[in-house]
Amino acid sequence: MKWVTILFKEAIYHRPKDNYAYVCTNGELHIRLRTKKDDVKEVSLVHGDPYDWNGKQWQIKTTIMKKSGSDQLFDYWFASVTPPFKRLRYGFILKNDRESTCYTEKGYYPEPPVDDTAYYFCFPFLNNADIFRAPDWVKDTVWYQIFPERFANGNKNINPEEALPWGSTAPSPTNFFGGDIEGVMKRIPYLEDLGISGIYFTPIFKAYSNHKYDTIDYLEIDPQFGTKETFKELIDVCHKNGIKVMLDAVFNHSGFYFPQFQDVLMNGEHSRFKNWFHVHEFPLVTEPKPNYDTFAFTPFMPKLNTENPEVKEYLLEVGRYWVREFNIDGWRLDVANEVDHAFWREFRREVKAIKSDLYILGEIWHDSMPWLRGDQFDAVMNYPFTTNILNLFGRQTITSKEFVENMTNVIHMYPANVNEVSFNLVGSHDTPRILTECGNDIDRVKQVFALLLSFIGTPCIYYGDEIGLTGAQDPGCRKCMEWDENKQNRDLFEHIQKLIRLRRENPLLSNEGKISFISPEYHEKCLAFVKSNGKSSIIVVLNTCSEKVEYTIPFDFKGKTVKSLWNDEEISLTDEDLTIQIQGNGFAILKF
Amino acid sequence: MKWVTILFKEAIYHRPKDNYAYVCTNGELHIRLRTKKDDVKEVSLVHGDPYDWNGKQWQIKTTIMKKSGSDQLFDYWFASVTPPFKRLRYGFILKNDRESTCYTEKGYYPEPPVDDTAYYFCFPFLNNADIFRAPDWVKDTVWYQIFPERFANGNKNINPEEALPWGSTAPSPTNFFGGDIEGVMKRIPYLEDLGISGIYFTPIFKAYSNHKYDTIDYLEIDPQFGTKETFKELIDVCHKNGIKVMLDAVFNHSGFYFPQFQDVLMNGEHSRFKNWFHVHEFPLVTEPKPNYDTFAFTPFMPKLNTENPEVKEYLLEVGRYWVREFNIDGWRLDVANEVDHAFWREFRREVKAIKSDLYILGEIWHDSMPWLRGDQFDAVMNYPFTTNILNLFGRQTITSKEFVENMTNVIHMYPANVNEVSFNLVGSHDTPRILTECGNDIDRVKQVFALLLSFIGTPCIYYGDEIGLTGAQDPGCRKCMEWDENKQNRDLFEHIQKLIRLRRENPLLSNEGKISFISPEYHEKCLAFVKSNGKSSIIVVLNTCSEKVEYTIPFDFKGKTVKSLWNDEEISLTDEDLTIQIQGNGFAILKF
Repeated sequence: MKWVTILFKEAIYHRPKDNYAYVCTNGELHIRLRTKKDDVKEVSLVHGDPYDWNGKQWQIKTTIMKKSGSDQLFDYWFASVTPPFKRLRYGFILKNDRESTCYTEKGYYPEPPVDDTAYYFCFPFLNNADIFRAPDWVKDTVWYQIFPERFANGNKNINPEEALPWGSTAPSPTNFFGGDIEGVMKRIPYLEDLGISGIYFTPIFKAYSNHKYDTIDYLEIDPQFGTKETFKELIDVCHKNGIKVMLDAVFNHSGFYFPQFQDVLMNGEHSRFKNWFHVHEFPLVTEPKPNYDTFAFTPFMPKLNTENPEVKEYLLEVGRYWVREFNIDGWRLDVANEVDHAFWREFRREVKAIKSDLYILGEIWHDSMPWLRGDQFDAVMNYPFTTNILNLFGRQTITSKEFVENMTNVIHMYPANVNEVSFNLVGSHDTPRILTECGNDIDRVKQVFALLLSFIGTPCIYYGDEIGLTGAQDPGCRKCMEWDENKQNRDLFEHIQKLIRLRRENPLLSNEGKISFISPEYHEKCLAFVKSNGKSSIIVVLNTCSEKVEYTIPFDFKGKTVKSLWNDEEISLTDEDLTIQIQGNGFAILKF
Repeated sequence: MKWVTILFKEAIYHRPKDNYAYVCTNGELHIRLRTKKDDVKEVSLVHGDPYDWNGKQWQIKTTIMKKSGSDQLFDYWFASVTPPFKRLRYGFILKNDRESTCYTEKGYYPEPPVDDTAYYFCFPFLNNADIFRAPDWVKDTVWYQIFPERFANGNKNINPEEALPWGSTAPSPTNFFGGDIEGVMKRIPYLEDLGISGIYFTPIFKAYSNHKYDTIDYLEIDPQFGTKETFKELIDVCHKNGIKVMLDAVFNHSGFYFPQFQDVLMNGEHSRFKNWFHVHEFPLVTEPKPNYDTFAFTPFMPKLNTENPEVKEYLLEVGRYWVREFNIDGWRLDVANEVDHAFWREFRREVKAIKSDLYILGEIWHDSMPWLRGDQFDAVMNYPFTTNILNLFGRQTITSKEFVENMTNVIHMYPANVNEVSFNLVGSHDTPRILTECGNDIDRVKQVFALLLSFIGTPCIYYGDEIGLTGAQDPGCRKCMEWDENKQNRDLFEHIQKLIRLRRENPLLSNEGKISFISPEYHEKCLAFVKSNGKSSIIVVLNTCSEKVEYTIPFDFKGKTVKSLWNDEEISLTDEDLTIQIQGNGFAILKF
């Protein structure tokens, strides 16, 4: 039946740039190809320098590509090359049992044509300036997200007037409990003990609400949180303790009480700020729908006109100010996808000119490649990662196989150097708490953290998740932090503490090696992946069912020493196979 | 047989940005989708504002997509929407006889899910600043490329010492004939008569060779061409006659005799310019291979280090200087693909700040999407267009059907607003002459120009092609222009002159409407396309064989008046069908 073995050309995809062709900081050029799942047996990269001719024959080399993963529909193939003259023309030879074809930019040929290079895909020059380059420190950082109003109250004198006693009642969209910067300061030893190395603060600038996403003054700290002096002190303490500090900036929109917006509300067409926003007509009205662009449809968050040079300069100065004056280490950018790319390019240039290793993190929930081309953000909040984890361990709506397929898809949406600084989270101020998502099953939460803290990317823990706070969607997930140790889940805390320590001690658990999933066919209930740097490897196996399982690791262990990192035990091998037992909803982390 | 009618999901492609989702200057958002050829019967776009909810139901609309073309493997689908709040989440409903499925960023669903928008593709906000925006004038311009050494000698006093009598011998890689700026000036009436509206000059800056691509001084006019005063005068004359002027800049590499490079050759490590180039080791050697990066492997064109701030500033000032001081209208950028994107972003910002409607044209021969995202170039030299035309009319190695498939592929590689300013050429100083490519068959050359001058994009005529100059690959294609009218092919000249006039008089022949090919199945020997603005249409039919054919236009002409633009004749219609006769290697241009 010939149709079965004909290569599915229509499924083959490559375009030179983005996730399909990119340069790493070490000068390697990574090339990826997508083919129909299980359709192609072997793929080789044919490549050469575009100007390297021998008479009328273009000189080509061949490099075997490796299958780097499969999702629901596709196989992905990978090769790394280092072109001696930093230029590459290339194509792909694809083979299955019956057929072999050469895929180029200009189409398909039975053999690689060598009479012209114009057929081929082109990576014209590996220019250093175009390499995606995130700060080195990010990939080794473990973040802790603090919602300042709810983390710790260190100074009751600056409480908002209406502040309620700490934790005395459930969080509501409008109530206050008085969390502040001094509170964070006092809890630095706690964070040190947990082992995190970066704090991501949701907004701390002067604003109306408890969440502070409705900025009134981008250059002031909200008085309920403290003063600039206190904040400076906090940064110092953090830096002395090896903790990076990232702030949250809302440049898509201002708050309703932003004076420039109030001026427009008041003076309409005569306001000198009338072009700071996207006003459709004057005077401004908020009902039935605002007659100016807003975030979503809320009249309280008027969209800023980031194309107005005055607004741009104002916001860029905000970006520069907190880096220059307070030496912050990162900017998390709210609703980053709705602001123009042109603005973000300038933003990057301006803030990196002051601090070249500043981390720029955009809040984008969907496919973010256009923001991750090296000229805008270093990373986005990896919500596709979150969704996958919740679906497997929380809602239990997908199988391990689907998890692997989905995650393979996410990983192949971006270059490898983007993935290693991706901001991985299992919950935030915008989602229900992980313990709640897991139906209060601590074992599953422990698995989630084992996965989060052994995966590629830069993991973030949402305050309180480590001691078992619960809570549904906002406002439920914004409870006051529990500081009474008797009410904290110390067992969970120690679990996470140990995972953080292991990640720090074993760079392979962080971002040192290459990651690949082990086919879920070996055990349908187990999710397993391996990270390898060529010398040693770490394998993580998570048992997603509640019964104990036996898992035979599909590697040849002859002559290898295997150590369980979690139990700190050497595993004695009786033969080449290694079969381990994993408790229901348990996991194993092995190094060999 | 179920497998026949299952939708080929693996062939379906969409990613929000670039050629698949882009905003036009009128605020329309164009969405494209790719499917396997002849696989899908109907495609609809499902879309809505991400924040438009009715209770727990996301509010969606449906828009039918039109098939905009097919290439060898794929069908392309198109829809245009104008989101009322400038935000869009969207997916696609695909149907064939047996199946219907909704394709989203997160996968396939039987029905469009409305419980969450996170499934869907996202075009977060139609920011004005990110719209690809080329100068308005470009799409109506007809270019004329001048290789200054060979166009016209207007002042013998500034001839290079070794200059040969005009046209006395064949061009060689090293000989000179003394073409200059005064020569061009004297021939402005000739160009006026031809009807062109833009001149693209290959380099005129001080250089060693006859082609001047080996710059010695980017801020001086080569003395063999004249002075800055003469050049200023030429620009004035051109502008007074409605002719734009574009210069050629070689920023990838300098010439060997560029003083900064000579300094490095001389002083090695001690040169203050040592970081202006990519030197691997000192001292510099040129044999057996240069130990510094070069264009191709030629030691005479050392690659400039455009990441060195000093070099960057030098070249940016070159870019600004000729715009600021001479009011040029465009920059054509040589070997543009090998220079870093970061440099081109700065270049665009700097030169457009001086003259916002400057045209920036990059020399790139391959897929150029990464340079055409609105932040770098306005266009690239459309060599894929050239290749297709040569293969059909010149080498005759492809059929009309293949031409349509290839051109459909090229058109769908870029947004529509990119295509309308694409620099279309059928020959240049880097290719054999079109008459030579067409085996000296004037009829085929006439067809080529009929196609070039009725197609979307901005067409360019290589000097002398209009009067039938011949010549093989460089240096053959760089002959002296023939000014003896008796030796010019005046018939060809008048043919092209008329085509230019028709293009000017009928905006549909230029870039006013939407283009679509008529399926070659209607007549395998005829290449036909239609351009329509909704009110009227123009159809161009080219007979690619040497025998007369009858071509029945597959439209309903009931109640329509049809006019042959080429013969300026009304065609009387006897019934609904319209059948025209086209001479061997002839063509028709009809308006209705």
